[in-house]
Amino acid sequence: MKPVETSPLTRKLSAFVALSEIELGALERLHQRRRSFAAGSDMVHQGQSAQAAYILSAGWVCSYKLQPDGTRQIVDFQVPGDFLGLRSVLLRTSDHSFEPIVDVQAAEVLTSDLLEAFAQTPRLATAILWAASRDEAMVVEHLVGIGRRDAVARMAHFLLELGARLALVGMGSKEGFGCPLTQYHLADALGLSAVHVNRVLRQLREQGLVTFRDGHVTLHDYAGLVALADFDPAYLDQTGPLLT
Amino acid sequence: MKPVETSPLTRKLSAFVALSEIELGALERLHQRRRSFAAGSDMVHQGQSAQAAYILSAGWVCSYKLQPDGTRQIVDFQVPGDFLGLRSVLLRTSDHSFEPIVDVQAAEVLTSDLLEAFAQTPRLATAILWAASRDEAMVVEHLVGIGRRDAVARMAHFLLELGARLALVGMGSKEGFGCPLTQYHLADALGLSAVHVNRVLRQLREQGLVTFRDGHVTLHDYAGLVALADFDPAYLDQTGPLLT
Repeated sequence: MKPVETSPLTRKLSAFVALSEIELGALERLHQRRRSFAAGSDMVHQGQSAQAAYILSAGWVCSYKLQPDGTRQIVDFQVPGDFLGLRSVLLRTSDHSFEPIVDVQAAEVLTSDLLEAFAQTPRLATAILWAASRDEAMVVEHLVGIGRRDAVARMAHFLLELGARLALVGMGSKEGFGCPLTQYHLADALGLSAVHVNRVLRQLREQGLVTFRDGHVTLHDYAGLVALADFDPAYLDQTGPLLT
Repeated sequence: MKPVETSPLTRKLSAFVALSEIELGALERLHQRRRSFAAGSDMVHQGQSAQAAYILSAGWVCSYKLQPDGTRQIVDFQVPGDFLGLRSVLLRTSDHSFEPIVDVQAAEVLTSDLLEAFAQTPRLATAILWAASRDEAMVVEHLVGIGRRDAVARMAHFLLELGARLALVGMGSKEGFGCPLTQYHLADALGLSAVHVNRVLRQLREQGLVTFRDGHVTLHDYAGLVALADFDPAYLDQTGPLLT
């Protein structure tokens, strides 16, 4: 029997539950339909009737809603190990769009595959629901951020969240992480203008907290940033097997 | 065999899937542990380790996150037929609090009950996941509202969403609905001050669109309100069996 490859999703779910051989096998089978998508072209359109979800294995994606006036609100970013469009499988149309920020690799998961895996391996189902619940908790935090945090705390919180998510799949640490996002992505996610994003990043840099330059976020003062953002990572629920 | 009572949740899920006798029975069993909660005292605290979710059968609840500075962001309101804390069952702590706005009745659902029902009746599981997905789509809309809609469109969108949700459980129509929310609830949900909420409601009333008075929302001009808010109810996914 060939060893099961450790996909980012496997790595992430293992923070929640110790998966058995059978469950790992079922998870591997969900990765069978490998697809590539080029940066900039939507994988799923808002309003599209979606019969598939994706597991992102490499690259970054953003999920967003376009407003009638042409502005967009980025709801979240997806990094390796994240599901895209798990919700679209259940709702009859996708309630938002997914756009690759860089070239990405993903596994297509049909609704039928997912329901079959759920029926066969209830613990895997629970682990996937954990991941979905965690995604939802992040959207709640983004709502709180836009509704209640000032621009500097909002940015700091956002960068800390990204760092923690990436650390979970081995792509970041408390020192920093690679990050392909532009100031426009940050602006659309945080409800700020690109000019305001620049000003906020400059302020954080001048305070010696964080530098975002050339596709890399360097966290100079992790504790200081946590204090500034009042960052409590409990909602990410990844402190169990992983970080103790 | 005694006829199965039509709970608001049953009514809501029936918009998604025609439930069989067996599934209706499993759904009824989830309603066994009836509990009452008084207005104003939290049912679930942020940070609490929750081993139960609730199905709301009467009354209104709000879910919120408190910020360290004492402000709060209301994430959503729950009305009869809604689940509370479905996510807390999966995450190890609750990522937000639930407070009854009026005296409420709810059925307590233990994690074990839920997983057992999921294993026995996969279609019921899918229907409950549909409801959870719909809740999540609403949080996304609230994020878009706070991030991208002006105060008047945000309020109009919010009232239309509430009306559609209540219509699904027989508690509202395109003419209006009973609503126990105060200006403070609206302010905390929409990221506005109470003064701003008053001004926005006055503007909507003076434009002949909607009146919110004495616990009742009257929609004078449903189409006008839809146009103002650019309200597209597709994300509520309730146009299938119900509204065609």
